[in-house]
Amino acid sequence: MTVLENLKEFLRIPSISTSPAHAADCRRAAEWVCRYLPGSRLIEKDGHHPLVYAEYLGAPGMPTLLLYGHYDVQPPEPLELWTSPPFEPTIRGEDIFARGACDDKGQTLILLEALRRCNGRPPVNIKVLIEGEEEANGEHLEAYVCSHAEELKADAALICDTEMFAKGLPTLCTGLRGGVFGELHVEGAAQDLHSGVYGGAAPNAVEAVAQIIAALKGVDGVVRVPGFYDAVSAPSSEELAAWKTLPFDEAEYLRTEVGATSLTGEAGFSVLERTWARPTLEVHGIVGGFVAQGFKTVIPARAHAKISCRLVPDQDPLKIIELLRAAIAAATPRGIVSRFDVFGSSPASVVNPGHPILRAAASALEETFGKPTVYMRSGGSIPVVGLFQRELGIPSVLMGFGLPDDNLHAPNEKFHLPNLYSGIEAVTRFLAGVTRVPGRRSGR
Amino acid sequence: MTVLENLKEFLRIPSISTSPAHAADCRRAAEWVCRYLPGSRLIEKDGHHPLVYAEYLGAPGMPTLLLYGHYDVQPPEPLELWTSPPFEPTIRGEDIFARGACDDKGQTLILLEALRRCNGRPPVNIKVLIEGEEEANGEHLEAYVCSHAEELKADAALICDTEMFAKGLPTLCTGLRGGVFGELHVEGAAQDLHSGVYGGAAPNAVEAVAQIIAALKGVDGVVRVPGFYDAVSAPSSEELAAWKTLPFDEAEYLRTEVGATSLTGEAGFSVLERTWARPTLEVHGIVGGFVAQGFKTVIPARAHAKISCRLVPDQDPLKIIELLRAAIAAATPRGIVSRFDVFGSSPASVVNPGHPILRAAASALEETFGKPTVYMRSGGSIPVVGLFQRELGIPSVLMGFGLPDDNLHAPNEKFHLPNLYSGIEAVTRFLAGVTRVPGRRSGR
Repeated sequence: MTVLENLKEFLRIPSISTSPAHAADCRRAAEWVCRYLPGSRLIEKDGHHPLVYAEYLGAPGMPTLLLYGHYDVQPPEPLELWTSPPFEPTIRGEDIFARGACDDKGQTLILLEALRRCNGRPPVNIKVLIEGEEEANGEHLEAYVCSHAEELKADAALICDTEMFAKGLPTLCTGLRGGVFGELHVEGAAQDLHSGVYGGAAPNAVEAVAQIIAALKGVDGVVRVPGFYDAVSAPSSEELAAWKTLPFDEAEYLRTEVGATSLTGEAGFSVLERTWARPTLEVHGIVGGFVAQGFKTVIPARAHAKISCRLVPDQDPLKIIELLRAAIAAATPRGIVSRFDVFGSSPASVVNPGHPILRAAASALEETFGKPTVYMRSGGSIPVVGLFQRELGIPSVLMGFGLPDDNLHAPNEKFHLPNLYSGIEAVTRFLAGVTRVPGRRSGR
Repeated sequence: MTVLENLKEFLRIPSISTSPAHAADCRRAAEWVCRYLPGSRLIEKDGHHPLVYAEYLGAPGMPTLLLYGHYDVQPPEPLELWTSPPFEPTIRGEDIFARGACDDKGQTLILLEALRRCNGRPPVNIKVLIEGEEEANGEHLEAYVCSHAEELKADAALICDTEMFAKGLPTLCTGLRGGVFGELHVEGAAQDLHSGVYGGAAPNAVEAVAQIIAALKGVDGVVRVPGFYDAVSAPSSEELAAWKTLPFDEAEYLRTEVGATSLTGEAGFSVLERTWARPTLEVHGIVGGFVAQGFKTVIPARAHAKISCRLVPDQDPLKIIELLRAAIAAATPRGIVSRFDVFGSSPASVVNPGHPILRAAASALEETFGKPTVYMRSGGSIPVVGLFQRELGIPSVLMGFGLPDDNLHAPNEKFHLPNLYSGIEAVTRFLAGVTRVPGRRSGR
């Protein structure tokens, strides 16, 4: 099968890790990855989606790379906004449309295919760890890395799960925001009440959740959680200066990527600063009361909102959770009981572009695309980068092949097919380039 | 069949008027009412649920009463909170549980059964108009009344759709709040966006709807729509004094009816004033973004909230809609487009307890229950009262047999069965009592 046929097969598996109903699909995706990696094995843990692990240590004296990807995907909803079904990969023009096309099946396949083309004998030592809970903030990977630090020892990690700054512009990502992810639950009366009879006396859970959200973030985009910005560390002046040279057109970004009447956010910061180097708070979903067609005049007894904060250096996720809970408690109106359940959290991470392995990556990209590599940050969170730094003491090479309009986490997610092939070429060149980098010379 | 068996049959019909899927059930309920009223007929209008009309004009020289009820019910959701299924009427103790048991099938049946017991020859002239869109703010009834004012001419209306102040306490309702009912629609980006990539720059529709709601009403229960309270007319000092003598225990009300940790609402007004004589704004439902199980880090592009205001004399619904729309526009954040669609509206209404027909009603209740009749208002809205006042120039006798814990519009709605029988007795006594009231002596 061609790599494109393989990609389609991979994309047809609805491996939605946040949904218990798709647990079997996640396992199928893990087994699919396993078949791609000779000698690989599944690492199981009760109640979790398997990890896939493989190692190719036949290059003594050479550095060791830890390759990471994920086979799970975001839920596809709202389904009605997809042009073609999310799990029937469809090619239109030079793009392939499907949930996970870019994030991260297409990019994980770049790693798998580059390895396959080495016929089991890559030029440097390779360890591969592919997980299935990246979109679900699952704990399997973290527990495994913490308890197998020796087995996973390497000189650097290689992760293809970020994007290029623009089409054709080779890009390394040197910083990721961290995050705190959770759900706000609000309760008022014992049950929904008639708003005519009780309106004016009974607490309204939907109003309460709205009032709490409004208290957490102003219409000016400023997060109002006391202490939220205290530990924020600004990017270096060199980094800020480099970002100003990137080809970024705010009007074009608003028109083609956002599609609203105006951008929002904190005054005094550029869009790149706001999305890469400033923390935010976003509400991802809200529900409460009567939401079916028609009208029902109830005072809702319960309401819920899914909320996350994106974090930057040097905000501490645990401290932010504490501040957030205090702010929620302070904003909770009389008669209402509120609770914030945390799903997961991770700190922000930054890597040093001067590291020899990052330089090797920059060269491989330049050779592949014929242009100098640019350095960006990403506003998203890849918790594994912080995990590898903390537990294994290694930097991550974030060599991404997504494009800004790939609709990550949204309807009509796509992957630009030329980037599939360029990605395989760039990773292959990178593995060759790393042979010239002084490593731990350890193998295992 | 006994009246109880008839009630069960009536309650088994899921005549949910707000749901197009239940249009056939609404028709079945209308036909059921028709069979109860000899000589009655359906009044049809395309796209609307039928009205049922009957007249018994065999008492020349006697006053004419217009009897009103409704056969439609509220949606039963959330279904999981019902002890027995909402459309399988179930008797527990002295209560019958079902959607519509009290509001308004049980009370409509009081009128139908009292008439049936007159064997087609009531002691006064009777016109009966039963509708099927009360819970849906439908326009059929209003259009019909406006165009058939002569046919519907009467001395007063009799409506059983309110409650007794307490069990065993005969009650007439002398005031109802009006209302404005609508839905707020909010749009931000063209589609849901990844909150990591766009968080800090893209507008969030869920946050916007929360911020707008928080701007419309404070946590102190005060509606912040500028001009909202301008036309509010306070109850008379006699009325306020009478309310203070009613058996009302705020702690008991909080514990048994509301079940929250505390009541809410405007400072400086009692619970009865807040729910009967003060206007409010309530949000009945909210939805936006990702609300399924799990977590999806999107910036939602759209969000919706169902909102109503309850109005008191002399607030003008059209003026309130205008003020509300202006307040929503003013509170709409940058990058967001908002719209408030109105479903329906009606002014508040009050009736004079000194009217001879209201005095006859008070006597009938006293004879039935053996206690003096008390006068209350209701916080709910029965738009037909205002309609009859405006178009027919007649007052409405609001003789209600619901109880405060009947769970109107909520799960486990019930009707106290002794009130079914007392209600039939009281209405029968009332019809006899009206023969002694000077009427228009018109019949038709």
